Amino acid sequence: MKVYGGIEGGGTKFVCAVATSPEDVRAETRFPTTKPEETLQRVIEFFQDYESSSGEKVAGIGICSFGPVDLDPSSPTYGYITSTPKPGWKLTDVMGPIQEKLATEVAFDTDTNGAAIGEATWGAAQNLGDFIYLTIGTGIGGGGLVNGEPLHGMVHPEMGHIRIPHNYERDPFPGSCPYHGDCFEGLASGPAMEKRWKTRAEFLPVHHPAWDLEADYIAVSLHNFICDYSPQRIILGGGVMRQEYLFPMIRKKILNSLAGYIQSPLLLEHIDEYIVPPGLGERAGVMGGIALIKRKLDKSVD
Amino acid sequence: MKVYGGIEGGGTKFVCAVATSPEDVRAETRFPTTKPEETLQRVIEFFQDYESSSGEKVAGIGICSFGPVDLDPSSPTYGYITSTPKPGWKLTDVMGPIQEKLATEVAFDTDTNGAAIGEATWGAAQNLGDFIYLTIGTGIGGGGLVNGEPLHGMVHPEMGHIRIPHNYERDPFPGSCPYHGDCFEGLASGPAMEKRWKTRAEFLPVHHPAWDLEADYIAVSLHNFICDYSPQRIILGGGVMRQEYLFPMIRKKILNSLAGYIQSPLLLEHIDEYIVPPGLGERAGVMGGIALIKRKLDKSVD
Repeated sequence: MKVYGGIEGGGTKFVCAVATSPEDVRAETRFPTTKPEETLQRVIEFFQDYESSSGEKVAGIGICSFGPVDLDPSSPTYGYITSTPKPGWKLTDVMGPIQEKLATEVAFDTDTNGAAIGEATWGAAQNLGDFIYLTIGTGIGGGGLVNGEPLHGMVHPEMGHIRIPHNYERDPFPGSCPYHGDCFEGLASGPAMEKRWKTRAEFLPVHHPAWDLEADYIAVSLHNFICDYSPQRIILGGGVMRQEYLFPMIRKKILNSLAGYIQSPLLLEHIDEYIVPPGLGERAGVMGGIALIKRKLDKSVD
Repeated sequence: MKVYGGIEGGGTKFVCAVATSPEDVRAETRFPTTKPEETLQRVIEFFQDYESSSGEKVAGIGICSFGPVDLDPSSPTYGYITSTPKPGWKLTDVMGPIQEKLATEVAFDTDTNGAAIGEATWGAAQNLGDFIYLTIGTGIGGGGLVNGEPLHGMVHPEMGHIRIPHNYERDPFPGSCPYHGDCFEGLASGPAMEKRWKTRAEFLPVHHPAWDLEADYIAVSLHNFICDYSPQRIILGGGVMRQEYLFPMIRKKILNSLAGYIQSPLLLEHIDEYIVPPGLGERAGVMGGIALIKRKLDKSVD
């Protein structure tokens, strides 16, 4: 049985694992994202250590990275993080050093497309060809499958940067996105909540008005994603969504917002199964890497 | 050489054609959309007349319909218009009578997915696997290809019904959508413009502030579609977009709005080829029907 390597490259932390499936994780590590060279060196050492201690070669490594990233195999910067505002990481070759030092097959995608493929393989989106995975935490990003394949297009989706209605009387906070001010991420990410309320989101009590406002921003954005992708399911992950009471609030607000226009029993009769947390929980990211490379190697066998 | 039938079923008018390609249209007709039975009867007679006068059987008919429509082949209402606000057309079987009376192969999709397939086959999106086609006229609707296939998902996209920022001080008009008030369609469709300015859009002069506001609403919506689909191109059709001076206004506003966050030469260096009118012009809809059935029959041969 082949073992695969997975990398969840986040802006805050990196997670690496070797596994055949979520039930059979052979090794795992996580460490903070520091400078690019240092961080990638730790990634490489983790897999080298695994291979030398187990005597087993990983069949390939799936890399799911924060972005924006370059996913175009014909581009000279394929496998790079491109225009990120994260200091030091602009135009960083993530895929190259890993592929070279570990001399193995690699697959590369966004963190959220990776998580989506993980969810499609083992989690909350099994057998679905059209769904989205959204993470709401330090940033807001989305990925998913459309027509059974990951969303790429010209670059890749940037679902956190859509523009949504913002009522300044109710919420005078101008938004925290350095590019767009009050886009979805600028209004509803964890850091946006912290700046607005002067408290970290996880310390805001359940009945604080922050949560009703947060659920409104998430619901209006999901309204848009439903009108755009017509997904069969929406998976909501990330730190902010650990507040589980957000789920019923969001579900109710979406049905109100769509006002019966989109006629589908998936939405109108089964909303509890339509908007759901990730089936793979905290491991969605790194298992996404495992699923990504497994999918690529399985395909090349077909 | 096979001849195909195409039907553009719009809320205002129906267009039917028999053709092998846009360069070889054998017959064409257009008439107003009245009651369902009467309208579908005229469609059926057009094709019967063609077949009896030419002695030639059409190989199949592609139907591109206004909606919402049911595109799920396993559904009992497959081929129906479902929850439309158009009087008399709710739960109308469009595909059934055509298939039955004309005893031929049919293909069925939304009007905008049809137009998108037409553009991919002969128009402004040849060789593109990821693009969107948006029509801005009596209503606003969108379709397109993602990963080379039409956008369907749970139902089909309803791009006109996304929620966008609305500054009531600048524009006190509450919006005209019976479901969502000030969604994109409620703010920017032809009827919304007419209600706001008390003049039909086509009679508003070039320098009227209506056009700057209209370009703003379109640009902010395209900002969202770019963040969601990451399309390789956006085709803008429909009555409102016949005001060609909207194109440069929209292109400029989008680049401002995205603020350099999406790094792609398609967008940053070739915006004039990125946001374009339909290559098939007024015939995009009906040629979409021809392309839709041609694509289906070609595939079944593979």
